Amino acid sequence: MNDHESVALSLDEVASLSRAILSKHGLAADHVEAVARTIVAGERDECASHGVYRLLVCVNTLRSGGVVADAVPVVDDVAPALVRVDAGGGFAQLAFERGLPVLVEKARRNGIAAMGLNHCVHFAALWPEVEAVTAHGLVTLACTPSHAWVAPAGGTRPVFGTNPIAFGWPRPEGSFVFDFATSAVARGEIELHRRAGKPIPYGWGLDADGQPTTDAAAALAGAMLTFGGHKGSALSAMIELIAGPLIGDLTSAESIALDAGAGSSPIGGELILAIDPAGFLGAEAASHIARAEALFDNITSQGARLPSERRFAARARSIADGVRVPHALYADLQRLLD
Amino acid sequence: MNDHESVALSLDEVASLSRAILSKHGLAADHVEAVARTIVAGERDECASHGVYRLLVCVNTLRSGGVVADAVPVVDDVAPALVRVDAGGGFAQLAFERGLPVLVEKARRNGIAAMGLNHCVHFAALWPEVEAVTAHGLVTLACTPSHAWVAPAGGTRPVFGTNPIAFGWPRPEGSFVFDFATSAVARGEIELHRRAGKPIPYGWGLDADGQPTTDAAAALAGAMLTFGGHKGSALSAMIELIAGPLIGDLTSAESIALDAGAGSSPIGGELILAIDPAGFLGAEAASHIARAEALFDNITSQGARLPSERRFAARARSIADGVRVPHALYADLQRLLD
Repeated sequence: MNDHESVALSLDEVASLSRAILSKHGLAADHVEAVARTIVAGERDECASHGVYRLLVCVNTLRSGGVVADAVPVVDDVAPALVRVDAGGGFAQLAFERGLPVLVEKARRNGIAAMGLNHCVHFAALWPEVEAVTAHGLVTLACTPSHAWVAPAGGTRPVFGTNPIAFGWPRPEGSFVFDFATSAVARGEIELHRRAGKPIPYGWGLDADGQPTTDAAAALAGAMLTFGGHKGSALSAMIELIAGPLIGDLTSAESIALDAGAGSSPIGGELILAIDPAGFLGAEAASHIARAEALFDNITSQGARLPSERRFAARARSIADGVRVPHALYADLQRLLD
Repeated sequence: MNDHESVALSLDEVASLSRAILSKHGLAADHVEAVARTIVAGERDECASHGVYRLLVCVNTLRSGGVVADAVPVVDDVAPALVRVDAGGGFAQLAFERGLPVLVEKARRNGIAAMGLNHCVHFAALWPEVEAVTAHGLVTLACTPSHAWVAPAGGTRPVFGTNPIAFGWPRPEGSFVFDFATSAVARGEIELHRRAGKPIPYGWGLDADGQPTTDAAAALAGAMLTFGGHKGSALSAMIELIAGPLIGDLTSAESIALDAGAGSSPIGGELILAIDPAGFLGAEAASHIARAEALFDNITSQGARLPSERRFAARARSIADGVRVPHALYADLQRLLD
């Protein structure tokens, strides 16, 4: 983007803009801080759909009453190695931040721990949360259902959400982090094809009759498909189970039924596991962690990329030089302050 | 198979045959019982490559000294929610069985727990272990590296093993269980194509120059590929990390380097997580678990299969009618008793 098409912002300016917009639309102060941190992280890492663009989505959700703007997360110490946080219908970020110290402490004390977030509105990627756990030197796995848009392998009707799964392994500089949807592609990707009038490849979706389709609108009205055939489908089912009923929260089918066509963000739960490398290994942890670095070298030395490498490169650029926001988007955001 | 081609055996006869062969070849008595249980389970569920056929592999491993025949597993209670079992170079089954009661107790007490098996010889599928955990009403996830045969997405040289991942969710009748390799197919599948002189589909492997190939022998000499592109590759890396360095055990690259061309079964570790549904949910567990059944109904009612359905059907048949072993295989097994 050149200067005519975009507006240059420092990350501090992104944070200020995010805070101002969220506050203006009635989000409680502690939620504003937590959500703004996620927005800044997305913009900083050049995840366009999870950066300041998401402020438009947040404001829509606030305006429609799809989120409890002043929800107070309640942290419940349910078992020695488990913590539940009832987000009370608020955005997930504050619930996560309130529970995180308990999760970290439990993982360190017991070797492994899990946190269930309940009754929260999800609109963000999982990697900011995964990175927040790895920052404490813990290995972590996180997942969440969404809305039932995705058919199981061998089926034709939506049962699963796009059900992302994310993993983090702490490293001194830039943890090993992945975060991907168990659908073949993100739903937004199919929506972009629809808007652009472009066909989608076979393998992304089925039409309402259960037939493979290259028509984006037909796939959106029918069913998306999982990545990796029956294996991806099995993983998606696992996510439904462990971040749904296991923690007392909704499946994707229940979430979309509750939505009843309103088109709001999915409401439901999220499961986050944390494992302390010192738990299994004690004083030997450092030497074993060094062998993990050999694994990463073995991947990158042959020209293969580690997940998140692109994000980390973008992050370095953004911290040094700030970010550029498309002019039209910036104008839309400014209007939210009127 | 008709009567001329196969031998009918009851499951008790399969067990007796397995015990006799393993004992004859010097495996210690407690290992014999544990390994025989796995062999019977594989044969019973009609997983041909994990049934009595595997006795040939076990005997080869015993003869070559690739396994410690009388290894005594040492259970180490390393943290409130973690247990490590040092298999001492023995088959994994006995180490798993010795650690299981500790894992179960820790999961019940803490809500979640993990078991690391170390220094064991793996030759079996993960689902028998997953089912042994779900039999205690626990949700479980298990994974293990193998030998470095699989290239990372975007790469050309083997780094990962076929790295299976298995999950189990307890149900009253026939748990929800999946167990799959994170490679596009099992290595044995490519070997079968090579023996049959049949080409393999693109997507299974690369030749030694890193080019996509349909030549099974070339793929075996080059690199296998993961399922699901970069997503499967990310999962495979996760398995290397959490069932390798995290528990103080080998990566697949280290395992195959140690093998030094001997062609033995992979030696290394395995990670098993267990979560108690009562931990998050307490008295409400039953009602939430009932919602999981609605998820399964939602899958099967549209004609899609749940993972393991074929195995469970085979199991019912085998329990009622016994199994049939091909005559040539049965003759090979009998020769191991001479």
